[in-house]
Amino acid sequence: MTVPHLTTALSGAILDLEKRILEAMPTIEYWLRSRLQNHTVPFYCSVDLRNSGFKLAPVDTNLFPGGFNNLNPDFMPLCVQAMMVAVEKICPDTHSLLLIPENHTRNIFYLQNVVVLQTILRHTGMNVRVGTLLPEISEATMIDLPSGSSLMLEPVQRKGNRLVLEDFDPCAVLLNNDLSTGVPDILQNLEQTVIPPLHAGWATRRKSRYFTAYDCVAEEFSNLISIDPWLINPYFASCGEINFSEKKGEDCVAKNVDKILFKIREKYKQYGVKEDPFIIVKADAGTYGMGIMTVKDGEEVRTLNRKQRNKMSVVKGGQPVTKVLVQEGVYTFESINTAVAEPVIYMIDRYVVGGFYRVHTGRSKDENLNAPGMHFVPLSFEPTCLLPEYKTNLGCAPNRFYAYSVIARLALLTAALELEKDANFTVEPISMVSK
Amino acid sequence: MTVPHLTTALSGAILDLEKRILEAMPTIEYWLRSRLQNHTVPFYCSVDLRNSGFKLAPVDTNLFPGGFNNLNPDFMPLCVQAMMVAVEKICPDTHSLLLIPENHTRNIFYLQNVVVLQTILRHTGMNVRVGTLLPEISEATMIDLPSGSSLMLEPVQRKGNRLVLEDFDPCAVLLNNDLSTGVPDILQNLEQTVIPPLHAGWATRRKSRYFTAYDCVAEEFSNLISIDPWLINPYFASCGEINFSEKKGEDCVAKNVDKILFKIREKYKQYGVKEDPFIIVKADAGTYGMGIMTVKDGEEVRTLNRKQRNKMSVVKGGQPVTKVLVQEGVYTFESINTAVAEPVIYMIDRYVVGGFYRVHTGRSKDENLNAPGMHFVPLSFEPTCLLPEYKTNLGCAPNRFYAYSVIARLALLTAALELEKDANFTVEPISMVSK
Repeated sequence: MTVPHLTTALSGAILDLEKRILEAMPTIEYWLRSRLQNHTVPFYCSVDLRNSGFKLAPVDTNLFPGGFNNLNPDFMPLCVQAMMVAVEKICPDTHSLLLIPENHTRNIFYLQNVVVLQTILRHTGMNVRVGTLLPEISEATMIDLPSGSSLMLEPVQRKGNRLVLEDFDPCAVLLNNDLSTGVPDILQNLEQTVIPPLHAGWATRRKSRYFTAYDCVAEEFSNLISIDPWLINPYFASCGEINFSEKKGEDCVAKNVDKILFKIREKYKQYGVKEDPFIIVKADAGTYGMGIMTVKDGEEVRTLNRKQRNKMSVVKGGQPVTKVLVQEGVYTFESINTAVAEPVIYMIDRYVVGGFYRVHTGRSKDENLNAPGMHFVPLSFEPTCLLPEYKTNLGCAPNRFYAYSVIARLALLTAALELEKDANFTVEPISMVSK
Repeated sequence: MTVPHLTTALSGAILDLEKRILEAMPTIEYWLRSRLQNHTVPFYCSVDLRNSGFKLAPVDTNLFPGGFNNLNPDFMPLCVQAMMVAVEKICPDTHSLLLIPENHTRNIFYLQNVVVLQTILRHTGMNVRVGTLLPEISEATMIDLPSGSSLMLEPVQRKGNRLVLEDFDPCAVLLNNDLSTGVPDILQNLEQTVIPPLHAGWATRRKSRYFTAYDCVAEEFSNLISIDPWLINPYFASCGEINFSEKKGEDCVAKNVDKILFKIREKYKQYGVKEDPFIIVKADAGTYGMGIMTVKDGEEVRTLNRKQRNKMSVVKGGQPVTKVLVQEGVYTFESINTAVAEPVIYMIDRYVVGGFYRVHTGRSKDENLNAPGMHFVPLSFEPTCLLPEYKTNLGCAPNRFYAYSVIARLALLTAALELEKDANFTVEPISMVSK
């Protein structure tokens, strides 16, 4: 498949941005190389981007990526090679690994992801078995998947300070579980290496801290290639002590919505953008597209109806929303036929190993596409997307993808900085509500 | 394309070997990881393998690989990613690189290789320009190639202890020139990093030292997976003070030929191999298939005719042959239709990034296929070759290729050990006969 053409006339700025990025490739790669080398990069990572035609920015960075099954199978050798680097660095002395997935046993797409991840790890020569935290799985259970593959889920056991399976004492534990509902006791104080570290989970992570770190990265990068940082960085603010059910803390949200809308309008004027600015309000912790809404005026926040309040009150696993991020919305101006398309970039260690588009036929360009119950069609990038061509047209697939790979790696670097800070940061972790 | 089936009935042992290698994958990868991590692996490397149906062994390890153009273009992203690792490690502070190719301006295939290599390096974000040592190129010269691409060759200049081009002062120098004719003065004592190091060139390298190092690697690996080391390691001996034109030193060669033939016959008996054993006699330094012959009896060495003597007396660049390697010949039992096919594996840093078959219609299975004037048809492996499948048949393409990738990495590890030793070794370098 080819990367769809932008469907907007407002393509001047982004083509200019793409051009800047492409021309500065040696400078950028040199800078990324030295910046990433000085930090512990996440083991793996996926980044949701928004491409508005005039702006290209990361809006979500997932440290427990769950869509490896959506990658083009041609990317597998690339994934394996990058995984060899990741495995070498994190656990050179390891040859057995326990993979802990999310507690979804009915989400076939997610289980396919676990199978692909296990396959990639096995191709690096790892012994990999999958241990589940689900209490109802009390013995090894084989799940057959529509793709023809199958997944063996085994109950994890705690033996002293080690996490083991029946006849399997792994050297390291790889989490593909984002710990939204807190860190279960069984994972606390393990003597084995846990990757990513526990504080990378949503029990401690906060979007506001992430985007604060991204501010610095975007600033430094923009200076490097002489662009306006706004072209790659959405405005944001955060509000604490929120309780949507009880109408608490809404004033802060409404004021910040209006403040940011004002700033966006200035920028839209500067760049000649005719669209209506909008704001995304989302829970500061958590993911899966829950606890999120689109607003175009601060007043909307004050006049939410009961249903909207309930929707904003809790996220995945029933966690209450007590803090929100108020963020400039970035339009999705890429589309395939009439369906809105959002790029998602996958990385292992510091290497971009593939990506795909979330395509959604039922949503508009200012909505969040990663929503519960959504049906997206993963359109995977071709491997040639990784090879920009200097002499061909701007806006062609590999050149567009190069810009994506650069912004995705800025998001990766940000996550590295965020995790370093969080490791030394005393946070109020979400208490565990279920195992 | 698919990997051709073995055309011999003697496939028992190699299938057994493949099976052992595949089953031991976690053990092997763990061992390779730790062994390769403790040594400086060559920047890049290609390995010629021979697959005799009962034996699989490396017969030549090239530290200046010249066939990147023969790789399947689908391997490019893999090459780029591995090159990022290589570049990061060798020269993290570098973003400009001077590539020095061989002095072949009429070999279109070789020039295509230089173009592909330059492209791979550019995709890692390097500024790469190509400097030639040819004195007749006194100004930047563009060479158009049949593929539609073109190559700019520029004359190198020495400025103090730096090698530069017009308006280009590179941080590092990458050699794709094997220094067969000695190390030219212009490359001596440079303050820039030179990759591979000068002592990796054929001016100092010796095949006998390489295969001595391989003995240890093959022994250790064979113990690891409990196989007879002979299955992956050809017998060899070396003879010095040779002068074929003057009939000097032939006695040593003839005696070693007979000694090794005797040992091979014992092994052939043990494994029920019905073929006639044969020996390859080749120059201890140098490459390009010059100074090489096949013999089946020591007496043949004593009764060479004038033409044969001349052929054995010099190698590439007119260097005299003064030392030879006497090595067990490994039959080439893979074929495509009726043409003999030899696998060549390409590596960048410690990663296998692709490979191809040399296919030769005019040669028999006990001859060297890498000969001057040969016309080989490069049949490139598919990327899926890198993904062995545990459950499918042995002998299928990805599983065959996994065995190849393991033996190739043993050859790579050997080169790393060889270069470490050579760095501390006082050798009699070949004097420079031409620039």
